Amino acid sequence: MSKKISIAIDAMGGENAPNKTIEGIKFFLEKNINKDFTLNIFGKEDIINEKIRKYNIKSNLINIINSDTVVSDEETPMTAVKNSKNTSMWNCIKHQLDGKSDISLSAGNTGVLLVISRMILKMMNEVSKPALAGLWPNQNGMNVVLDLGANIECNDQNLIDFAELGSALFKSLFPKESAKVSLLNVGSEEIKGTEMLKAASKRLRDLSNEDNFIYNGYIEGNNIMSGKSNIIVTDGFTGNIALKTAEGTAKFITKNLKKSLTENLFTKISLLFSYFSLKKFQNKLDPRKYNGAIFLGLNGPVVKSHGGIDSIGFYHSIDLCYKIVKGDLMSQVRKNLHHSKSA
Amino acid sequence: MSKKISIAIDAMGGENAPNKTIEGIKFFLEKNINKDFTLNIFGKEDIINEKIRKYNIKSNLINIINSDTVVSDEETPMTAVKNSKNTSMWNCIKHQLDGKSDISLSAGNTGVLLVISRMILKMMNEVSKPALAGLWPNQNGMNVVLDLGANIECNDQNLIDFAELGSALFKSLFPKESAKVSLLNVGSEEIKGTEMLKAASKRLRDLSNEDNFIYNGYIEGNNIMSGKSNIIVTDGFTGNIALKTAEGTAKFITKNLKKSLTENLFTKISLLFSYFSLKKFQNKLDPRKYNGAIFLGLNGPVVKSHGGIDSIGFYHSIDLCYKIVKGDLMSQVRKNLHHSKSA
Repeated sequence: MSKKISIAIDAMGGENAPNKTIEGIKFFLEKNINKDFTLNIFGKEDIINEKIRKYNIKSNLINIINSDTVVSDEETPMTAVKNSKNTSMWNCIKHQLDGKSDISLSAGNTGVLLVISRMILKMMNEVSKPALAGLWPNQNGMNVVLDLGANIECNDQNLIDFAELGSALFKSLFPKESAKVSLLNVGSEEIKGTEMLKAASKRLRDLSNEDNFIYNGYIEGNNIMSGKSNIIVTDGFTGNIALKTAEGTAKFITKNLKKSLTENLFTKISLLFSYFSLKKFQNKLDPRKYNGAIFLGLNGPVVKSHGGIDSIGFYHSIDLCYKIVKGDLMSQVRKNLHHSKSA
Repeated sequence: MSKKISIAIDAMGGENAPNKTIEGIKFFLEKNINKDFTLNIFGKEDIINEKIRKYNIKSNLINIINSDTVVSDEETPMTAVKNSKNTSMWNCIKHQLDGKSDISLSAGNTGVLLVISRMILKMMNEVSKPALAGLWPNQNGMNVVLDLGANIECNDQNLIDFAELGSALFKSLFPKESAKVSLLNVGSEEIKGTEMLKAASKRLRDLSNEDNFIYNGYIEGNNIMSGKSNIIVTDGFTGNIALKTAEGTAKFITKNLKKSLTENLFTKISLLFSYFSLKKFQNKLDPRKYNGAIFLGLNGPVVKSHGGIDSIGFYHSIDLCYKIVKGDLMSQVRKNLHHSKSA
């Protein structure tokens, strides 16, 4: 493909914008050796230019587009549409609708981003509800987990759609691996769970084939990271609780580990010997590497970076956008939907 | 209180019974210095006596009660009642019903234990559904989390009951600490979550007072272990997923940490210096210390040990039974129910 990958970046969203967003852009420009992309940077032109100078960015791969206003963190989804027009976030999505960007990225207000993305890009006809997907490490590589909270209550059709969308995302990010779907449940036997889950499981079993995804049945919480499946499908309530619980557990353990490894002179000496191995360990689990939740089911992908992220984390979310477009997510989605809707 | 604490123990339940159960009993007899208890051991008398000799147990605090049969792992809750009569598990609960034991403990088939406990002991009149509660560490001490999977679908009344039962359990185990209840939700703001959660939250706010429990509002998954609240209330589906996800995450991290700390000569040397601190760290997170889920809402408490547990883990579940009775759980439950039913 010779077509350039075009990414719309809201430089003004998030707690540390625009310093961390612009520094993240700098890292991406340094690390991506392919140079087959354009970064469309949305925000107040004078501020953006000041930061570009501050971080000494010299590149012909960026394109600054002025937006005078910014979506406030206090804005609610109800008032978002009225108050968000021509903000940096709005202009990103509009740029994407006009075909000038392939994907949008913002670290701003999540609720507002979801509402205006849906309003501007519109839902795909074949999809019942949009979903919020995230990446999560497993023993063999990476999981796609969805829905992470866009839909608090779901029916079996929603879960089928999430399986299709999630495996399309997985295949665009990891084209060499096969997509293996599981439904998150309280047991692995067929009789476990709600009637809604049983109905979804039966239909996923019918749809399971090498072309779209292999359905592996139910998975329990303790096996999410086992690598048995790599697309974990659940409703937005359960997905949100599961992911946040995993985050909290990881934080609890690493905090206590750090305390143990610095509590006296001996443990501090031990750090000298294990420094590089512990760095590698920390690097593997670094949550900044998984920064970025992806809205799926709209006529184009939108990525939400964590609001409090630093520049390394923001770099990873730009890289995620690049990979999603490079892996041709939207074609994968259309192929998957074609399979299941004609089944 | 001069009355002896009497614990009914199913010695035949679980994958490693009766070796690990009897060795666990031995540890309890060695470690409990109060000696204000009787352990009623249910199982085949000749096998139990053989193990008692094997582990060199000499104590006048044990009482062996013969039961010729054992609940099979293949038994389903449907056929349990017909096939479980006079098994070691059944006889434990019957002993408790007859007032000869205060609490029952089994590492056997969970579904069967729940069904026969409910059938023999009966539900408390004031409680809508029984719950399965568990212990989980937090930054300041310990959480009680419930329901862990007894009830896949719940209404707001069930959640109110769980809050009452969970805080009674907490107060019986940790009499010096105050009971702080939170509802597990996808956000901390009042507008977040399902209508059912909003209704439960409103009623819990009305019931909040120093005498039974303080209601702290919603809690998100990443704050379960923060210590902000110590009784985490949720439906059985979400609770099961959250706890198992936390287990899986902890296992994933410790496995990768172990790999990092043994990967070369330097890291192995580092272990010499940090050995005792890492042992303390491991000890704090040792899942065997939290072994034992508690059935609440029946006319008497029943504890389920993990089926694959070793003798140290089984020891901890006997100790949990002892503490529950010592802390007078059933009086705490009645007091809490009185508060809220008369509110």
